[in-house]
Order: sequence, then structure tokens, then C-alpha cells
Amino acid sequence: MLQKIPSLNKLVHELNRLPGVGPKTAQRLAYHILRSPQEYVDHLRAALRDVKEKIHDCPVCFSFTEEEGPCRFCTDPDRTHSTLCVVEDPADIERVESSGAFRGRYHVLHGAISPLDGVNPQDLKIQALLDRLSTPQHDVQEVILALDADLEGDTTVLYLAKILKDLNIKISRIAHGVPIGGDIDYVDYRTLGRAIENRVQV
Amino acid sequence: MLQKIPSLNKLVHELNRLPGVGPKTAQRLAYHILRSPQEYVDHLRAALRDVKEKIHDCPVCFSFTEEEGPCRFCTDPDRTHSTLCVVEDPADIERVESSGAFRGRYHVLHGAISPLDGVNPQDLKIQALLDRLSTPQHDVQEVILALDADLEGDTTVLYLAKILKDLNIKISRIAHGVPIGGDIDYVDYRTLGRAIENRVQV
Repeated sequence: MLQKIPSLNKLVHELNRLPGVGPKTAQRLAYHILRSPQEYVDHLRAALRDVKEKIHDCPVCFSFTEEEGPCRFCTDPDRTHSTLCVVEDPADIERVESSGAFRGRYHVLHGAISPLDGVNPQDLKIQALLDRLSTPQHDVQEVILALDADLEGDTTVLYLAKILKDLNIKISRIAHGVPIGGDIDYVDYRTLGRAIENRVQV
Repeated sequence: MLQKIPSLNKLVHELNRLPGVGPKTAQRLAYHILRSPQEYVDHLRAALRDVKEKIHDCPVCFSFTEEEGPCRFCTDPDRTHSTLCVVEDPADIERVESSGAFRGRYHVLHGAISPLDGVNPQDLKIQALLDRLSTPQHDVQEVILALDADLEGDTTVLYLAKILKDLNIKISRIAHGVPIGGDIDYVDYRTLGRAIENRVQV
């Protein structure tokens, strides 16, 4: 039950739409923001504008970048072209990077195959992955699939293993040090590092 | 450990400054916002702008309002002038309203006396309360103190009881149905309703 202050109710409503923010938390945050200095709200609004305006997909690997053209991973000369790590989301790159166990390049699928949710292979960056691996000048020798250890991740691994098997590239999956049923977002960096070292060919 | 995307890091930083939002939650929210439709981010930014631009203190009771002049509580003809409920924060009004046990008017102190935090009586709307109760046309017969049941609330009750005692007005405090040490924000409406009914004269 809210006071009849339309702009406050509107802010509570918008905050309540964020994941993990219930009505009570949204209300508490809204009151906090209302009492915050104008400067903080200006900074927050500018940050919200900038993430949408400045960040776009890298045209090569589809991770997030602010740069014109390919992202810093795709242009880093110290990173080997010979291994390609396939992840579901751009945020997963951070987890892999923090493990310190991988110095190759990335490819972001932007999801995983999930027929129940209406996510089919053509909704993901799978054709782009095939195109990338099929260009004559490619020198990828191994594709590491760092997908979530859940049903959607498993389905996507099987699908990718099938369509990539004729390309004569080693396909591996990070080891099941990742807890079964778990989300790659929440794995600590040591577990993820071990999982990359113990990857198993599929 | 974050990807080197300045605008994303900035948003994580700003979200992390909100109460109850740790670094991991801030990161999760930032990625969610980045993937949200432009429309959502526009709405959120507009809501943030509007709460700061449109909402100001009521000149009479110091609660939040969007209206010109006194707020809807101060101008509601169905609310009695004879009882005045004193609260610490505008958000507390919502809790009292949801109890349904009070149909008078409000006065918001904007805090509670806390010498350790440097909050003294002159930092609160206490002089304004005295002025309000001392005008010849006032007809307040009872002041109900609905302050938090903590050290600062207790201190403020004692202070107000002392300076208001010569005004020949009944001073009461909501009953300790509110858990001792608790914050009025988190009390369910039944407990708060009981506490208002069982208020004890001080």
C-alpha cells in the first residue's frame, strides 16, 4: 500500500521489474533514491544511458564492447587464435577470465538451446560460429564449450558437437567440476579453472 | 573482476552504492539492464528524474508530496485536526496508513535525535512542530509519537515529552507491540494497528 505519489509509485514499479527486487526492496530503494543527493541520481541516470548507448556486440565474437570494430579479446595479439571458448552470455567471459586458465579467444552464443522456451539454434550465434570456423584463413584447432551444466547447456553441447564434427577441429567441454545443475555465473574461479584444465573431448 | 567496459563498470559502481546491493548483485543487475529493452531503461531513467524533480516536502507536515502547497493528508477534510501523528520518515506514514488505525494528520521529523551521529533537535522538524502546535487556531488535542522503538526513538520521545508538556496537549506513544530494537518500516500492519490502539500516555 503506497502513498498516492505517482512519481514515487512509478519508480517502485520500475525497480520491482529488476530480477531479485521484490516490492518491499523496490520501495526501500525508491525512498533511498528520493533522499539521495541530486548528484547521485544524475550519475545513476547517466550510467544507465551510457550502458545502452555505448555498449554493443563485438562483430566477431558477439561479446559486449564499447570499441568500434572487434573487441579487445578479438584484437589482443597475445591471445592465441588456436583455441576458441564458446560461452552462453557475455558475463560468462568474466568468469572464465578470472580463472586465469584460458588465453584464447571467445564466441558468445547469447543463450542456449531450449525448445521449451522457444530458443532454437537459429536464435543463437551458431551460424556465425560456423562461418567463423569455416573461413579458409581460420586456424582454430580446438573449440572449448564453456556452457552451463544444465539441460539447455547439455542440449547445446550435443547440437554443437554434431554440427562441428566434420570441421576436423577438436571439440571439448569444460570438466564437470562445475556443480551439476549449477549456473556458470556462480562458480568460484578455482573450480572453473580446474574445469578448464580437465576439459573432456566430446 | 570485470571486463574492461567503462560504462558497464560505472553502472555496477553506482548500483553498488544502493543499500543492500552488493558487488555481485550490482553486476547481475547491470547485465540485466544492458540486455533489457531500451524502453525499460528509458522508463527507469524518467522515473529517477521525476522523483527528484516532482517530489518535495509538504510545507505543513514535511511528508513527501507532488502537490503545490500542503499535501493530501494536510488538506483532507475527512481527517481530524485533533490528533497529530509524529513519525521519523515519510515512509513511516505508509506503514501507519496501512494499519487503518489512524485518521488524523501527520508531522514528519525527518530523523530522530542521535548525538552520536551528530543529529541534534535543531536538525529535525521539531521547531516546526512546536510552531504548528503553538498557533492560536490549532486544535490538536493529542500528539501520538510513532517513532522507532530504538535508542534514537526513545531519546526523541523523552525530548518531545519534555518540551511539549507545557502546551496542555495529551502526548502518547504507540504501544510496544512494535518489537523492541525494531524498525517501524518492517512491522506488519496488524502489529502496528494494535500498537496505535494501545498507545500509552507519556
